[in-house]
Amino acid sequence: LPDHRKSSKQPGEFELIARLCADLPYGSRTVLGPGDDCAIIAPSRRLQLFTIDSMVEGVHFNLDWLSPQALGARALTVNLSDIAAMGGVPRTCLVNLGIRQGLSSAFFLRLYRGLASAARAVNVDVVGGNITRSAQLTVTIALLGEVAHQALRRDTARVGDDIWVTGTVGDSALGWRIMAGEVKAEGSARRYLIGRFVAPTARLAEGQKLSRIRPAPALIDISDGLLADLGHILERSRVGAELDLGAIPRSRPYLAVAGERMDFALSGGEDYELLFCMRPNHSVQSISRYLGIAVHRIGRIVERQRGLKLRRSDGRLISASGMRGWDQLKGA
Amino acid sequence: LPDHRKSSKQPGEFELIARLCADLPYGSRTVLGPGDDCAIIAPSRRLQLFTIDSMVEGVHFNLDWLSPQALGARALTVNLSDIAAMGGVPRTCLVNLGIRQGLSSAFFLRLYRGLASAARAVNVDVVGGNITRSAQLTVTIALLGEVAHQALRRDTARVGDDIWVTGTVGDSALGWRIMAGEVKAEGSARRYLIGRFVAPTARLAEGQKLSRIRPAPALIDISDGLLADLGHILERSRVGAELDLGAIPRSRPYLAVAGERMDFALSGGEDYELLFCMRPNHSVQSISRYLGIAVHRIGRIVERQRGLKLRRSDGRLISASGMRGWDQLKGA
Repeated sequence: LPDHRKSSKQPGEFELIARLCADLPYGSRTVLGPGDDCAIIAPSRRLQLFTIDSMVEGVHFNLDWLSPQALGARALTVNLSDIAAMGGVPRTCLVNLGIRQGLSSAFFLRLYRGLASAARAVNVDVVGGNITRSAQLTVTIALLGEVAHQALRRDTARVGDDIWVTGTVGDSALGWRIMAGEVKAEGSARRYLIGRFVAPTARLAEGQKLSRIRPAPALIDISDGLLADLGHILERSRVGAELDLGAIPRSRPYLAVAGERMDFALSGGEDYELLFCMRPNHSVQSISRYLGIAVHRIGRIVERQRGLKLRRSDGRLISASGMRGWDQLKGA
Repeated sequence: LPDHRKSSKQPGEFELIARLCADLPYGSRTVLGPGDDCAIIAPSRRLQLFTIDSMVEGVHFNLDWLSPQALGARALTVNLSDIAAMGGVPRTCLVNLGIRQGLSSAFFLRLYRGLASAARAVNVDVVGGNITRSAQLTVTIALLGEVAHQALRRDTARVGDDIWVTGTVGDSALGWRIMAGEVKAEGSARRYLIGRFVAPTARLAEGQKLSRIRPAPALIDISDGLLADLGHILERSRVGAELDLGAIPRSRPYLAVAGERMDFALSGGEDYELLFCMRPNHSVQSISRYLGIAVHRIGRIVERQRGLKLRRSDGRLISASGMRGWDQLKGA
């Protein structure tokens, strides 16, 4: 049976919200911040972006792995990445906390400090929220943003487009497997890979720059994994793709720890890099220089009926959907 | 340890989201609905209202008490009530579902059907959402609205204002205590009180009408309980209040089941009626006629240092904060 209503929102918790919210950053876009039934925000002259994401203890994180500050920052970052994936500018967020027993108010102050600091860094107003009891610590953030130039969608990839990815992939998946004790790693490689899980970066500036390119690139952030997220673009755009396995960018620490294993890079997820498809008239050098970070061309968009295929180093194409195991990727 | 990333979002769940979202209602304000990293919505010419609220199984509800349809509708209604409490018009929402084991996709289809139907009834677009695994079924909704005329805030009550409340209070609290077996009730009174918990109404039209009155009433919705929510107005407006106990409106079923007990009416919560404070130049008749529902004048705003007091039928004033028990309310 549910507990008594009154105990779902103890006065102590309200005081906690008030204390937490008092220190939250908000600027002139915010007419009324925390403390009323709703926040009031200024009208938006541009198209608005709206997204929600949730981090659940025991599902997405573990308090042995993340400090409260890192958790607060990371909960915002995964939402920021959704705005980045539309080429947008993040503006305003609300936070819903599910609080379990056994966590102190000092813990939540640190969580909010991490969140507030991450918000300040990208000029996002935290305009309020809600606290409820819960069996698992849960941080759910709803984020509003604006379209800067044009929205970058998943449904605009065309046959003949090149497929690009920012940075390197698979690091975050390796990082949490290292923390879980499933993969062994030492020294700086260990620190780098864990850091990629604990404190990912949302590619906001890169998404905004890509939104200036015409025709608009099809774009998605890599949260579920390279193949899964490319799959979302293929499905929405009704096209197929061929990926060059050898071109998929892996970091030096990745290679040191995982060697030739491609599964973390292809299916790892939570890298929050950008995957995008553009007309084939751009060089790696020009796009890297334009974005100010390393990018790699990893394949091309083909007709839908050809599905999603991976080209091995021996030139053979194998179907991603029919793949029975990662051994197949190694070549003859 | 967290489960593997991949299992936090199974393909089956993605298919479920897609199926659920395909049927969700959205109109011309929505440029891009579910299926991308963010929804895209049209610019807002007016001030915007932004709120988030969460319903957690075992804290706010129990599946023995609510059908999946009622749960979906109620999760939206508690958010709509926050918009009503600002005098606003609800526009666009996102849904974050925490899904536990043991619930079928048919369950979620029914939940979304209830949500979609409640959204359609108030012209709200459900533009997307997120699904994650969780130990408890959790429905979190972020809702955007607009200020219709002027925003009704908690911080504008002035000494001398009359305090008003729409409808009757305490019914919902009695309703869930009946379902919990803590209070006995039969027949139509039982059905009415349970219905007030299961399917509350957000007072949207009434909030919008009140927002046309100048100067703007101070307003809040009764979600935490009459005394607690009035307390929020007093705190934000830096004033005190005197309530006439006998004037606090209780329904006929309330009186039949709870008799002279005032605790459900004063502290019950989840009625989603509106509590508002206005200059003392309005009659009960004129305000009831203007809003099209019964309203009651239950007290007045006084200086801050006089705190929150309740006037018993014998004329004695007792302090709400110092109240040791409900017996005190009965009078000499």
